[in-house]
Amino acid sequence: MIRVAIIGASGYTGAESVRIILRHSEAKLVYLTALAEECGEVGEVFPQFKGRCDLQIEPLDFDKLSGLADVALCCLPHKVSMGFVPKLLEAGLKVIDFSADYRLKDIEVYEKFYGVEHTDRANLESAVYGLPELFREQMKDAELVANPGCYPTGALLAIAPLLKEAVVKTGSIIVNAVTGSSGAGKNPSIKFHFPNMNENFFAYGVGSHRHMPEMEQIASQIAGCDVQILFQPHAGPFDRGILSTVYCQPKAKISSEKLSKLYKDFYSSEPFVQICEDGPAVKDVAGTNYCHIFVTCAKGRIVSFSAIDNLVKGASGQAIQNMNIVFGLEETLGLA
Amino acid sequence: MIRVAIIGASGYTGAESVRIILRHSEAKLVYLTALAEECGEVGEVFPQFKGRCDLQIEPLDFDKLSGLADVALCCLPHKVSMGFVPKLLEAGLKVIDFSADYRLKDIEVYEKFYGVEHTDRANLESAVYGLPELFREQMKDAELVANPGCYPTGALLAIAPLLKEAVVKTGSIIVNAVTGSSGAGKNPSIKFHFPNMNENFFAYGVGSHRHMPEMEQIASQIAGCDVQILFQPHAGPFDRGILSTVYCQPKAKISSEKLSKLYKDFYSSEPFVQICEDGPAVKDVAGTNYCHIFVTCAKGRIVSFSAIDNLVKGASGQAIQNMNIVFGLEETLGLA
Amino acid sequence: MIRVAIIGASGYTGAESVRIILRHSEAKLVYLTALAEECGEVGEVFPQFKGRCDLQIEPLDFDKLSGLADVALCCLPHKVSMGFVPKLLEAGLKVIDFSADYRLKDIEVYEKFYGVEHTDRANLESAVYGLPELFREQMKDAELVANPGCYPTGALLAIAPLLKEAVVKTGSIIVNAVTGSSGAGKNPSIKFHFPNMNENFFAYGVGSHRHMPEMEQIASQIAGCDVQILFQPHAGPFDRGILSTVYCQPKAKISSEKLSKLYKDFYSSEPFVQICEDGPAVKDVAGTNYCHIFVTCAKGRIVSFSAIDNLVKGASGQAIQNMNIVFGLEETLGLA
Amino acid sequence: MIRVAIIGASGYTGAESVRIILRHSEAKLVYLTALAEECGEVGEVFPQFKGRCDLQIEPLDFDKLSGLADVALCCLPHKVSMGFVPKLLEAGLKVIDFSADYRLKDIEVYEKFYGVEHTDRANLESAVYGLPELFREQMKDAELVANPGCYPTGALLAIAPLLKEAVVKTGSIIVNAVTGSSGAGKNPSIKFHFPNMNENFFAYGVGSHRHMPEMEQIASQIAGCDVQILFQPHAGPFDRGILSTVYCQPKAKISSEKLSKLYKDFYSSEPFVQICEDGPAVKDVAGTNYCHIFVTCAKGRIVSFSAIDNLVKGASGQAIQNMNIVFGLEETLGLA
Repeated sequence: MIRVAIIGASGYTGAESVRIILRHSEAKLVYLTALAEECGEVGEVFPQFKGRCDLQIEPLDFDKLSGLADVALCCLPHKVSMGFVPKLLEAGLKVIDFSADYRLKDIEVYEKFYGVEHTDRANLESAVYGLPELFREQMKDAELVANPGCYPTGALLAIAPLLKEAVVKTGSIIVNAVTGSSGAGKNPSIKFHFPNMNENFFAYGVGSHRHMPEMEQIASQIAGCDVQILFQPHAGPFDRGILSTVYCQPKAKISSEKLSKLYKDFYSSEPFVQICEDGPAVKDVAGTNYCHIFVTCAKGRIVSFSAIDNLVKGASGQAIQNMNIVFGLEETLGLA
Repeated sequence: MIRVAIIGASGYTGAESVRIILRHSEAKLVYLTALAEECGEVGEVFPQFKGRCDLQIEPLDFDKLSGLADVALCCLPHKVSMGFVPKLLEAGLKVIDFSADYRLKDIEVYEKFYGVEHTDRANLESAVYGLPELFREQMKDAELVANPGCYPTGALLAIAPLLKEAVVKTGSIIVNAVTGSSGAGKNPSIKFHFPNMNENFFAYGVGSHRHMPEMEQIASQIAGCDVQILFQPHAGPFDRGILSTVYCQPKAKISSEKLSKLYKDFYSSEPFVQICEDGPAVKDVAGTNYCHIFVTCAKGRIVSFSAIDNLVKGASGQAIQNMNIVFGLEETLGLA
Repeated sequence: MIRVAIIGASGYTGAESVRIILRHSEAKLVYLTALAEECGEVGEVFPQFKGRCDLQIEPLDFDKLSGLADVALCCLPHKVSMGFVPKLLEAGLKVIDFSADYRLKDIEVYEKFYGVEHTDRANLESAVYGLPELFREQMKDAELVANPGCYPTGALLAIAPLLKEAVVKTGSIIVNAVTGSSGAGKNPSIKFHFPNMNENFFAYGVGSHRHMPEMEQIASQIAGCDVQILFQPHAGPFDRGILSTVYCQPKAKISSEKLSKLYKDFYSSEPFVQICEDGPAVKDVAGTNYCHIFVTCAKGRIVSFSAIDNLVKGASGQAIQNMNIVFGLEETLGLA
Repeated sequence: MIRVAIIGASGYTGAESVRIILRHSEAKLVYLTALAEECGEVGEVFPQFKGRCDLQIEPLDFDKLSGLADVALCCLPHKVSMGFVPKLLEAGLKVIDFSADYRLKDIEVYEKFYGVEHTDRANLESAVYGLPELFREQMKDAELVANPGCYPTGALLAIAPLLKEAVVKTGSIIVNAVTGSSGAGKNPSIKFHFPNMNENFFAYGVGSHRHMPEMEQIASQIAGCDVQILFQPHAGPFDRGILSTVYCQPKAKISSEKLSKLYKDFYSSEPFVQICEDGPAVKDVAGTNYCHIFVTCAKGRIVSFSAIDNLVKGASGQAIQNMNIVFGLEETLGLA
């Protein structure tokens, strides 16, 4: 039985991790932490867990944690996380980190987009980017996994076969995506106040979203050459899901049938990726760890669509998939 | 042309008042005020008015206001309003006040439910309760109209004929109501954060909502005897509308047909009340000043349903209907 | 491993049953049936199961079924079900029936509310009403369980302690409830067309809903005397959940504290019932088999609130809870 | 007073036209028609108009129509409309046609995308494309206006300045758009059944949507050269609005400031187009005839966003704007 600590358990990805671990047959929750003002019984902090989990959410105490848990799901925010991860590793835990702090290998890019100095370069170097469909092997010995961003997960799965097989020009990929509102996190804001977000739809982060360099770094790694991506996110009036619509220019003419076969072959042994015959719908993957993909040609372009649940495959589900890999468990445990 | 000032224009009822006055043929906006930190061009504060209104929202200046406007729609919060209304009246304006400060004639009840001392008893006494279907005549000479609460508007219209005609027992009326989320106002909160309110439905204010004594006071006035109401509000995942489901015990057996006729007669000359043949839907009245009502018998009880838009008939629309009455204009101007 | 057949697998309760059984550790799907025109691979009929279940949904063949399965979850509509249940029982299966056909013991009431002759009186008599919190013992030997309606489940759990302990007058209970739209089923209709149902809220079935006699029958059984219920359903713009607000008259004065204790004692060993300190929210139980209840006093009445997921505790989840009981499994398997 | 007939008044664009004309100070409804099975009092067919309009919706009778009305808003479906428009013109009415039948000047393209022979080539030739911001002058003498599609309205307003000023390459424009569900029309369907559409988001019409050739025709006309557009529509869970996100390649480097100035100049005298400083939101234009636009540069591309209400600026509002132009009225009447 893997013993799981959730660091920063009071937010949405923490709650989603709790939900999944509660029905994981070979992992159990042993320790949940949050800032002092957000602590309490799990069932008080999250009424949906009333009667389902009798742990307390409590302030993090490294002395207590050491020896108590085998792995930490670290759900802390960007910039905060890198202050805690080294200590979690020192305490002997494997760490799956949800923040962006260990994703961007180029420190300059990190510091530009996140506006702070990176304080844990040592671990940054050894961290593995936790997209199992592409980096499963590297994760098997990892001490620290950088769990991917929600948008990069959806976008990269949508175009990985094109990049790997060098089917498309890499200078002008457009990723147009829309997220449900849980992506905004738990803190109330004017934009996500119900009377504003309901019946609404808008673009944000034009040309500046932090997931853009993350996509480019991993896409370049997959393609083996520099990949440029214009990423444009939007917010829609629903809870869960990201739909990515990706536009690429093929290097040479290719049929929709060939594209579909390429994708089916590429993902043939992946438990959580499904290739569809038509545009995927976020509702079909909501609450699951699945990614639905459809690829086709239109007006001389390749258009690829992917749908994921931003809180599951885009965060907590993928983290637990990664945890399963790191500990040598069946990869789908708790997620099927 | 009636010159309208909106005091407290930066909230939802202020915006809704702007929207309605903009297409009122005999009234125009001349002055909009808010707290300093919420001021600016109307089109900046409310992007929906971009290009439609070139006024500034500015901090209230009584010297400037005096002589500039004929009427103030006072959209300030409870407790704050009674600090401003006397000065607005002194400045020579008629006032339609949206707060609860001038609705409850019994000062003890006010002070119990609102937790503060009432500081303007003089005007409280002369204020007219602005439900035109019942108090139209009294409003014609009024200097100060207390615009009704949204829930009381829906509930009182649903039961006024029963009370007026003494059809029901007055000791145990139950008003079960649900409101859309705009009723919560403009400030973000955990309850009305989109990821919490979306796909949700819950009761609140059990046994303690401030609109309960307001309903009871006016219901008692209509009935000519003490009326006891158990009022239970709920919040639902939509923007606009209140559906009230009211359960009463008839004094004597009465048929659904007779009830329907009673209501049709009672409201026969009312421009904004429609008697339906089936349960009304909030979507049919959203964005309008109409109230749809259906009344019937079931299991020995009378059940009466009403639907209104909480921001229009439940607030700004009714205020402008009242303004039309006070100034002797056609009552439906700007609202048809 | 319990082998499960789902009869009528192409509707919402069928899909929800598939979802739950897929992660049940001691039950597995072996046979899924539907009308010929709704058959196909599970992942085609329900894209959310793409890659998660390789069964076909096929037309029902009793020869094939016999010996293949241990239990049938019969998700057929009212009136249709009683034509199939006898054959399922004859084929040696235990049956959990989702329809109303085996719930109403009084045939006259059934025939009045459902408008057809009952054609399987023999099994009607022996069927056990599948509300485990009240009839767990009777289910242990049952061949046929009549799975309760969604509204009766919510309402009965909200008032069972009051009835059992004879705390309230039984002549005038009011159940005001609201359901999410999945309760309307899979077939498109004008009422539930998105542009009509979205941003809407309305009452329906005034004085005539078929769940009213079902509530009254079981409530009377619990109370040991005749119970009269006025049941008023509403539809709201969300997918899942029923919130019931129940108004009762106490026989004698009782405090909120005593009520709360009464409920906590009554449900102390129930795995799926939680007593809350405030009004429950449907979102907290969505996707789970839990029922959240809050009870209090207001204006001389007892008001009790319950929240369930209409597709889980109100249908498929409760059916699988019942299946677990019938087969002597741990009651929470697949549902925790 | 312009006398208005609405042909095909029983659908969403018919209802929206009724709503707008009801508060138009120089136009009035005189005749409403629909298929026999959809006729009745306006307030019965559309409960939102109960008490607001006492006309009947009745089957179309050309004898009755002739002399009764000055203009027909023809809200019939594609392919049906061209059977009626010639007769409406012969009856002496001006016609604003909502269908696609008079939009595509190239008959081959029409017949390919709509799958039928065009039966009214004479009027097709003289019809004016009713996008006032670009073709206002041509409309002033028009007998027949082809009211634009909802998607083309949003997309063309978003890129017209770029095309007119030859700022962008015309070979590879991408229009990524999302519509609210009212765009699907009034007839229930599986896709737009509330439990399917709610909490959902998906792409459709990949590479084949009928609005693509319409966009290309008008864009080419504006640019004075062939324009190729890849148009990808999506459906989102809200009632009203289209957000278009358009990606173009600039011919030469251009700053965001210059782009913004270009747009402000281009639309400086347009009453219904507003240039914003950030991404527009559909909720800000819902229920209005306004189009909000934001244009900027990102990663070497020009990205232009527009938001409209698909039923107003995308259909009925624009039709009435066009009607105002045709009859020499102030263009904003009924729409401000």
